[in-house]
Amino acid sequence: MKAEFINPFIESMLNVLTTMASLEAQPGKPLLKDDELARGDVTGLIGMTSPQAKGSLAISFSESVICKIASNMLGESVSRIDETATDLVGELTNMVTGGAKNLLAEKGYDFDMAIPAVVAGKDHSVTHKTKGPKILLPFSTNSGRFYIEICFDQ
Amino acid sequence: MKAEFINPFIESMLNVLTTMASLEAQPGKPLLKDDELARGDVTGLIGMTSPQAKGSLAISFSESVICKIASNMLGESVSRIDETATDLVGELTNMVTGGAKNLLAEKGYDFDMAIPAVVAGKDHSVTHKTKGPKILLPFSTNSGRFYIEICFDQ
Repeated sequence: MKAEFINPFIESMLNVLTTMASLEAQPGKPLLKDDELARGDVTGLIGMTSPQAKGSLAISFSESVICKIASNMLGESVSRIDETATDLVGELTNMVTGGAKNLLAEKGYDFDMAIPAVVAGKDHSVTHKTKGPKILLPFSTNSGRFYIEICFDQ
Repeated sequence: MKAEFINPFIESMLNVLTTMASLEAQPGKPLLKDDELARGDVTGLIGMTSPQAKGSLAISFSESVICKIASNMLGESVSRIDETATDLVGELTNMVTGGAKNLLAEKGYDFDMAIPAVVAGKDHSVTHKTKGPKILLPFSTNSGRFYIEICFDQ
């Protein structure tokens, strides 16, 4: 998968966190290895389709990271993954994917977004089932790490 | 959501289980309640898009049910949720959604499917984040229960 497909998702993620949650995140090196799993305590998932390709994106947060993001965004202390936090993960998933969609549209790549789903449960794993490449994007913050898993079947 | 959108998913699920896994499942009454969560030990998720609507589907299995399905399909004993089982959940998710897609196409409703993702982790919950209706379809088998959560944003 070309960097021009991946970078808009990294850029959009950092934009959303900076503007909505005043949180700085450092993107790590994208990983292509098949045995690397996105693991987290809460995950937002969204499907993408276009006439040329299918895709899917997952954002997996540990409890400490999503509670920090939720506390910053809502201006009140959030200490566990409740409905407020899972709603927020759904919104973040929509915002990050929507931002990347806009950036990719400027390059001539259009796709449609499906409805986001949010998975909650301690230390679950997420794997996309496709023969295409799967990219794991690690991010680190002062409150811990989170991951985006993304794939396009082109 | 009209029954004509939901029934093809039930029909396709039962078709796939009967023909691929020789497993009889009884569909329960579809639930519209917002506080009902699809809970399971392994879940397949897939997004759907069309010019008219967005959608998403989740199939959540308990460990006992997916091990029974995997054992029947593969002809060898599967006793835990390993990579074989999660691969199978991805395939089942594709097959069930693809079957429903064909049935809905016959009625003039076309949609595109995204790439399936599989979530594994004991007793996680799945919730779709949409203002549209969310339908929970319970199924029971001799090996336990499983759930389809489905929504269309129309």
